[in-house]
Amino acid sequence: MSAKKGVFITFEGPDGSGKTTQSGLLVQHLRRQGYDVFHTREPGGTSLAEFLRGVLLRPDANISPVTELLLYSAARAQHTVELIKPALSSGKVVVCERYTDATVAYQGYGRGLELKLIATLNGIATGGLKPDLTIILDIPVRNGLKRVARGRATDRLENEKLSFHEKVRKGYMTISKKDGKRVKIVLSKGSILKIQDRIKWYVESMLKRAQYSI
Amino acid sequence: MSAKKGVFITFEGPDGSGKTTQSGLLVQHLRRQGYDVFHTREPGGTSLAEFLRGVLLRPDANISPVTELLLYSAARAQHTVELIKPALSSGKVVVCERYTDATVAYQGYGRGLELKLIATLNGIATGGLKPDLTIILDIPVRNGLKRVARGRATDRLENEKLSFHEKVRKGYMTISKKDGKRVKIVLSKGSILKIQDRIKWYVESMLKRAQYSI
Repeated sequence: MSAKKGVFITFEGPDGSGKTTQSGLLVQHLRRQGYDVFHTREPGGTSLAEFLRGVLLRPDANISPVTELLLYSAARAQHTVELIKPALSSGKVVVCERYTDATVAYQGYGRGLELKLIATLNGIATGGLKPDLTIILDIPVRNGLKRVARGRATDRLENEKLSFHEKVRKGYMTISKKDGKRVKIVLSKGSILKIQDRIKWYVESMLKRAQYSI
Repeated sequence: MSAKKGVFITFEGPDGSGKTTQSGLLVQHLRRQGYDVFHTREPGGTSLAEFLRGVLLRPDANISPVTELLLYSAARAQHTVELIKPALSSGKVVVCERYTDATVAYQGYGRGLELKLIATLNGIATGGLKPDLTIILDIPVRNGLKRVARGRATDRLENEKLSFHEKVRKGYMTISKKDGKRVKIVLSKGSILKIQDRIKWYVESMLKRAQYSI
């Protein structure tokens, strides 16, 4: 694997916070400006990962928390080595919906699995690759769940109770406090284009800081 | 999970060394003596694990070594928590074909993944559960591969080259030297019943030592 030349942006946030919409708009914006962008999401993207996605999200899955953590890590490892790292090596802007912070927030703060264990597995799965910028879309839990219910079928994670989602949200807040240079909270409130403007501001600052050019 | 009451026996060894035959004979023998035995194998046994088994063994799988390690660990975690631990808690003799030592031998000594990383993942997947007795069936690599080719379709692991299998065999030898009280080497040579007699000897010694009774 050659050295990293591109930049790596991740989108995080509770269900219904607008990750797909906002990352899609950002990708369109960057492409119009001439950037070569690779848009992907976890745990999908590779044939193996899409396959595991089916396992992880089926409503009847009876898998233990540690098994779940290992499966997410396996999907992440394959996704990182097969798609993200090659795109970065070839100089692209990689935009990924969910990455390591999702595991810290959901399995760590949400389900109570040991944060050190999660950090170990995140390190193993990614070979230490960290995003240059992480946008956490923040939304009050009830609003997020309402948005989800309106637009899509519920899956296993979305069926879990409100208090779980509150813990996840607090987890994301803690992550942003611990790593404020990389991780930015964007309030997912107001018009879609207003939210997008806040995101663009952080992306442009990062691109300048990274001295990244087309 | 209640405390462990049963005993846990694993079978290890290169492909074609006779694990299925010998563990099957041991299970028959123990059942005839009145023991309540649960016979299982890795990575199968749970619906999730059987599913992953299909992924891991398909000849066209293009998965990275770290992904593979994480998938085996996930299958092991589920198998251990869903089947092995409950059987041990209810006082059964558990006989399992392949367990943590297989990962050390195949992914560690065979593929050269870091042994410390493997030990970490084995600990995570099993919650620290170790066998009371491990039988490694030893066979010169060429003989093992011949037996495999005669009886069964080849899979991805069995297609790998001879030198890989030599490293795996040496890995098993090193494991038995490091943990000689738990791990016994049985030469898979001579008649099936002679080999079985050697295995029974170790099993009976362990059952006496563990003061395990029906």
